[in-house]
Amino acid sequence: MSETENAKCHSLSKHEGLNNGGNIVSSNVSDEMTEKFDLATVYVSDAQYNRNIFFDTSPQAVRLYLLYNHWFMQTLVYVFIIINLALALFEDPAVVPIPIWATSTIEIICLSAFTVRMVHYAKVIPKDKFWKDPKNICIIIVVTLSFIDLTIYGALKTSGYFSIRWSRVLRPLLLVNVTEGRQLRRAFRSIRNALPQIAYVFLLFMFSVLVFSLMALKLFGKRGLLTIDGSPYFTDYLDIVFDLYVLVTTANSPDVMMPAYNYSVFFTIFFILYIVINIYTFMSFFLAVVYNNYKKYLKEEVRQLVKARRYKMCRAFSLLQETRGEGGEPVVTQAKWNLLVKLAKPKISIAHRELLWNVLDDQNKGHIGKIAFVQLADLLSIQVITVKSQAHPIQICFPSLYNSSASRFIRHMVHHRMFVYVYDLIILVNAVFIGLDEENPVVSNAEWGFLALYMLEIILKLYSTEPRAFFARHHFWNWFDTIIVVSALFGTIINSALKHSGGYTSRQILDIVFIMRVLRLIRLVDSIKRFRAIINTLIKIGPTILTFGQLIVVVYYIFAMVGMELFKGKVQFFEPNSTSPDQEYCGNPLLKGTTFAKLNYCKNNFNNVISSFIVLLELTVVNQWHVLASGFTAVTHVSARIFFVLFHIVVVIIIINIFVAFILEAFLVEYTIDKSDLQTSLEKKIEELELNVQQDSMDTGLVDAMESNENDLSSSEAGKQKPSLMFKIASRRSRTVDGLLQRMFERDLRPEDFNEEEEPENFNFSNPVFDSV
Amino acid sequence: MSETENAKCHSLSKHEGLNNGGNIVSSNVSDEMTEKFDLATVYVSDAQYNRNIFFDTSPQAVRLYLLYNHWFMQTLVYVFIIINLALALFEDPAVVPIPIWATSTIEIICLSAFTVRMVHYAKVIPKDKFWKDPKNICIIIVVTLSFIDLTIYGALKTSGYFSIRWSRVLRPLLLVNVTEGRQLRRAFRSIRNALPQIAYVFLLFMFSVLVFSLMALKLFGKRGLLTIDGSPYFTDYLDIVFDLYVLVTTANSPDVMMPAYNYSVFFTIFFILYIVINIYTFMSFFLAVVYNNYKKYLKEEVRQLVKARRYKMCRAFSLLQETRGEGGEPVVTQAKWNLLVKLAKPKISIAHRELLWNVLDDQNKGHIGKIAFVQLADLLSIQVITVKSQAHPIQICFPSLYNSSASRFIRHMVHHRMFVYVYDLIILVNAVFIGLDEENPVVSNAEWGFLALYMLEIILKLYSTEPRAFFARHHFWNWFDTIIVVSALFGTIINSALKHSGGYTSRQILDIVFIMRVLRLIRLVDSIKRFRAIINTLIKIGPTILTFGQLIVVVYYIFAMVGMELFKGKVQFFEPNSTSPDQEYCGNPLLKGTTFAKLNYCKNNFNNVISSFIVLLELTVVNQWHVLASGFTAVTHVSARIFFVLFHIVVVIIIINIFVAFILEAFLVEYTIDKSDLQTSLEKKIEELELNVQQDSMDTGLVDAMESNENDLSSSEAGKQKPSLMFKIASRRSRTVDGLLQRMFERDLRPEDFNEEEEPENFNFSNPVFDSV
Repeated sequence: MSETENAKCHSLSKHEGLNNGGNIVSSNVSDEMTEKFDLATVYVSDAQYNRNIFFDTSPQAVRLYLLYNHWFMQTLVYVFIIINLALALFEDPAVVPIPIWATSTIEIICLSAFTVRMVHYAKVIPKDKFWKDPKNICIIIVVTLSFIDLTIYGALKTSGYFSIRWSRVLRPLLLVNVTEGRQLRRAFRSIRNALPQIAYVFLLFMFSVLVFSLMALKLFGKRGLLTIDGSPYFTDYLDIVFDLYVLVTTANSPDVMMPAYNYSVFFTIFFILYIVINIYTFMSFFLAVVYNNYKKYLKEEVRQLVKARRYKMCRAFSLLQETRGEGGEPVVTQAKWNLLVKLAKPKISIAHRELLWNVLDDQNKGHIGKIAFVQLADLLSIQVITVKSQAHPIQICFPSLYNSSASRFIRHMVHHRMFVYVYDLIILVNAVFIGLDEENPVVSNAEWGFLALYMLEIILKLYSTEPRAFFARHHFWNWFDTIIVVSALFGTIINSALKHSGGYTSRQILDIVFIMRVLRLIRLVDSIKRFRAIINTLIKIGPTILTFGQLIVVVYYIFAMVGMELFKGKVQFFEPNSTSPDQEYCGNPLLKGTTFAKLNYCKNNFNNVISSFIVLLELTVVNQWHVLASGFTAVTHVSARIFFVLFHIVVVIIIINIFVAFILEAFLVEYTIDKSDLQTSLEKKIEELELNVQQDSMDTGLVDAMESNENDLSSSEAGKQKPSLMFKIASRRSRTVDGLLQRMFERDLRPEDFNEEEEPENFNFSNPVFDSV
Repeated sequence: MSETENAKCHSLSKHEGLNNGGNIVSSNVSDEMTEKFDLATVYVSDAQYNRNIFFDTSPQAVRLYLLYNHWFMQTLVYVFIIINLALALFEDPAVVPIPIWATSTIEIICLSAFTVRMVHYAKVIPKDKFWKDPKNICIIIVVTLSFIDLTIYGALKTSGYFSIRWSRVLRPLLLVNVTEGRQLRRAFRSIRNALPQIAYVFLLFMFSVLVFSLMALKLFGKRGLLTIDGSPYFTDYLDIVFDLYVLVTTANSPDVMMPAYNYSVFFTIFFILYIVINIYTFMSFFLAVVYNNYKKYLKEEVRQLVKARRYKMCRAFSLLQETRGEGGEPVVTQAKWNLLVKLAKPKISIAHRELLWNVLDDQNKGHIGKIAFVQLADLLSIQVITVKSQAHPIQICFPSLYNSSASRFIRHMVHHRMFVYVYDLIILVNAVFIGLDEENPVVSNAEWGFLALYMLEIILKLYSTEPRAFFARHHFWNWFDTIIVVSALFGTIINSALKHSGGYTSRQILDIVFIMRVLRLIRLVDSIKRFRAIINTLIKIGPTILTFGQLIVVVYYIFAMVGMELFKGKVQFFEPNSTSPDQEYCGNPLLKGTTFAKLNYCKNNFNNVISSFIVLLELTVVNQWHVLASGFTAVTHVSARIFFVLFHIVVVIIIINIFVAFILEAFLVEYTIDKSDLQTSLEKKIEELELNVQQDSMDTGLVDAMESNENDLSSSEAGKQKPSLMFKIASRRSRTVDGLLQRMFERDLRPEDFNEEEEPENFNFSNPVFDSV
């Protein structure tokens, strides 16, 4: 935000502070007020979602900005990105070939959509900011190059020349550079920051490999040893380097050692030293370097994020503030605050909003100061579930039946711990039956029994728990059970109907039925407390893994595009029942006698984007990657090894280590920061007001409560002692590592950060410039 | 230490405080004083070396204790342990068979030695402490069982019955449980502490593997697919579980997937999910759990260690303290302190001792209080190199020659940066020549040239640097260079002499020459600053890796002993030039057609302890471990898989992860704790006294200074402005992670820990009981 704007903002807030001392009711706000609220809303939601866009503060730009951030627009952008990326499925070499004009048209539509989005963005933020942001430049370059490539390709293709769609490599860059790709950009920044240090360790590691290779050449080169396939052992320096590099990935252990070992046991000393130094020490060292850098920059980034968030909340405050009495502290009234929250989070329930107000205004003054106000963004991001106790529909329709002693006994039984144990036992027995041969009539009949038992369980639970509470959004296992059991039931019925009618069983339906049956067993995990804790940790790490998934897609896509250009059509796959003599060497005589052909790896090829991704996955898992590499080297040129080694360095040495660093840090943060005090203050308030739902009963997943997001407070007649409306901090599952870290830093920043209202020092947040080490 | 002793100790120190107010000169100490000094010395050296033995404080016991801790006794114990472990080389199945009576005699000698050591130990510490310590119990049990086993084995063997030397499995336990094996015990404790959490994650992981296996059985079992070697694919549940477990180790990827992938691309989804969940998520999770636990307990252990050290120093202080004036603080005089330091570290130079005193008594009072006194242990463990500037011998003998302008030019040249660059270039050119064929006369003659150049370098350096300074203990690279070059020279001369005389070249000598030549290249690393920094970090982590090496030896030894009993003689290795038809299937018809035999893995067997260790190393590297496992399964029974899976769980999942956790933490500690303030206070003092050696000039390894540990201060005539005696904190290399952590905690403990003189809460240090999570 520029200096002038800043001044304007301050004068505005002063102006307001002097004139609007009275109450403002949401119905009679002036135009100016509306604009102010719009701007404040934008600041609050930017703070809440950690957006760091420095939009123009003119009313028109603010409205455009609101549109820009609308969920529909954001989803649309991702849809177009996915379509654009998915084009690789249809372009040559295609999984499903469609004509060039069709793919080109789709691509033009996508590129136009990105252009429109860019123009929209340019209208929202100041010109100078727009052109200084590398994200925007990158998108513009990618879109322009794609258009150029498309034109050249179209022209050359129609005139019958050979041409390459080289701009396809650039496509995933869009995923990284769209405004919404913050997490992904951060992951890339982690990598970039770690790169200089990794580079030095890597160079030293390569030096070690080169020295060992030279030693291997001198020790084994002249001994006339032979490998298992009869070729000379360790005679060519570059081959030795490659073989020893492969040994670092462990992929050719112990084969690479065997000829030397067979010759003399003393030569194993060479390999043991090599393994200890290069596999264990250097590989751990890579992880340590990556982890150390990741940790260092993560803290710095989160600290900046928290500062920016605080700054935005301060701006929102200065827009809405008014001075109480002469020389008093500036405050925001409850009425204004209510309106702001309504605008920032339209779906919030009145009860939830009032709870938040109670937390902030804990002395019931009717207005809050800056320190309380800035906490709003954090409070809004804590998921609170409004729980209403509601009577069971059967209780309403047939009260006498529902309250009879038999009915009460059933309900008591279902909620009993034994009920869970009995069903765990049933699941275990079921597991054994699944393992048995389903052709056996006893087994297939037993399946009906199990299905009936599972259906009975769901019905009993639905009887004893209010259905809407049972299917509340956060009751994952209830949903899981019901979907699995019902689909298995339908599948089994269809399958048996097909069998009885024509004697024919559809393999697909049977597969689905089998999968459903096996998935049912997963329910066991939820019964064991320790396992549930582990699963919860895993789920909390989930969002991190998803960001990481995007990162992998970007890298895979680039390598797949390059790989397809290099290797497409070089290796052919023949259906297993094919009788072609070419089958033996994957349709390429160059592969005759290679391990690649012997192991029947023909389907591991770059002939379409799906195959390419699978090959790349196999390369990521590392084992046998040298066989794949030598296969593709055999059909092209020895320099093709570069592609595979490069992939190994990028994905296995860098990205997998970053991933492990992600998980390590997530795990440690999860265990060290146990409760953020903001969340605790909210929880305290809920407890104070005696509106809390017992955590234990929630944990069993059998709670007698219900989630509601409706705005009405009118509750039904609850025949219990509990208050009709209750709150619960949404499962700790929703807390991400990021959120935890942010709150940790918020606590650290609190004392000194309220005075300064100037812009955070490093304002180009999306791409902060760190000193590379 | 018991209550009564404690009281006695206090009364002793009071007694002393009242009577001995005057100066005590080391020559006229009474018997009682000698005993006190003995005890104080023991406390100081225990504190310095972190020994936590609660010896009897009676004068006799103290003397025995001093003997017990004598380096010769400690070395002797390790020699006997190594001999005892090395017996496996000579016992059946032997590498070098020697008669049973010989091995038995050696073993009896070793066991007797351990018994003597135990008796010695029992005499040093109080009876009740002795019998409460699990270490002692463990050693007694191992020794007893070994004797019993030896007797039974001998008896059965002489009467011709089959017998197993089962007690060999217990041997490595001695290594863990001797008093000196502190670090190793700590590593084992890390594992034990992490075990409960690992167990839960492992169970969940196994549950996931079992569920996936069941799904695989249902999906693929009935499809009639075949693996590459024609056997049915995924039809037996237990085989599937094993195959999928192997997939987690990546060893059979992508082969295990290929039949399903060839059938339909959709089945890859199953494997991708499996890989993502079980390889990436769970394996990272194991590391995270291990790392988290390691970190948690490491801090606790180091904290306790620091407390114990402080406690011991306090005891030493109370033995030597005297009160200055009426009601003054108890102090220790310089004379007493000097005597104590002389006793605790006999080899310390007077200059060094005075430097330490200056650091502690910074106000020159002539006596120090408790707070200063307790720092002694830490100060003693900081290595200070006493540097004396000394004239070059040539300068002394031929001053005019040495000071001539030509000589000065040479010396200037050698110290110039270009000199290093020129030799780096020579090394690079040499590397190319090494890579070329040494049969070529140009290459073999060039080798003489290179040797001459290297010799010239050493001579020049020796000319321009004082020889004793050049070969100072901390100048690693000078030693390295000289040894490598001189051995290469001798090797080359012998080799060429042999060649010229009889035309016969010994391969062994040639091998050594080659290794020497290649090792020379490593010198390049020292020229690049970044590389040097990495190497320094690696060297610092060195001691940790060594502890870890012991851990690996213990585990390997146990598995090797079991493996040899299970698999010895089942697989035979035939020399490559053998013509036996059995060679094809390793002498065991059961191996016919197996991958094991096809890949010629015959030498990977358990026929002696060296082969076993190599096989276990291959299993640790993981790749192809399933081939080895199925080989040994084929020659024995399918349950042999348990051995291999167990090894994988113990070594790869637990120990390797602990190792990575070790390295990660070492690396992070190394980077986060940069300077301990104790070391800094010593450095500050050295600087204050203007006795410091420039760090830069030290770093180049060409410093004009010399290390001396002699006690005389008489320096030679130095014709320079520098003081004749200088100090330098020994290279930061010697700082271990442990030391760093300890100092970190010492800083934390300082304020509150001086008052309490009671025993640290948890006194059984060697095996502290932590709450398992």
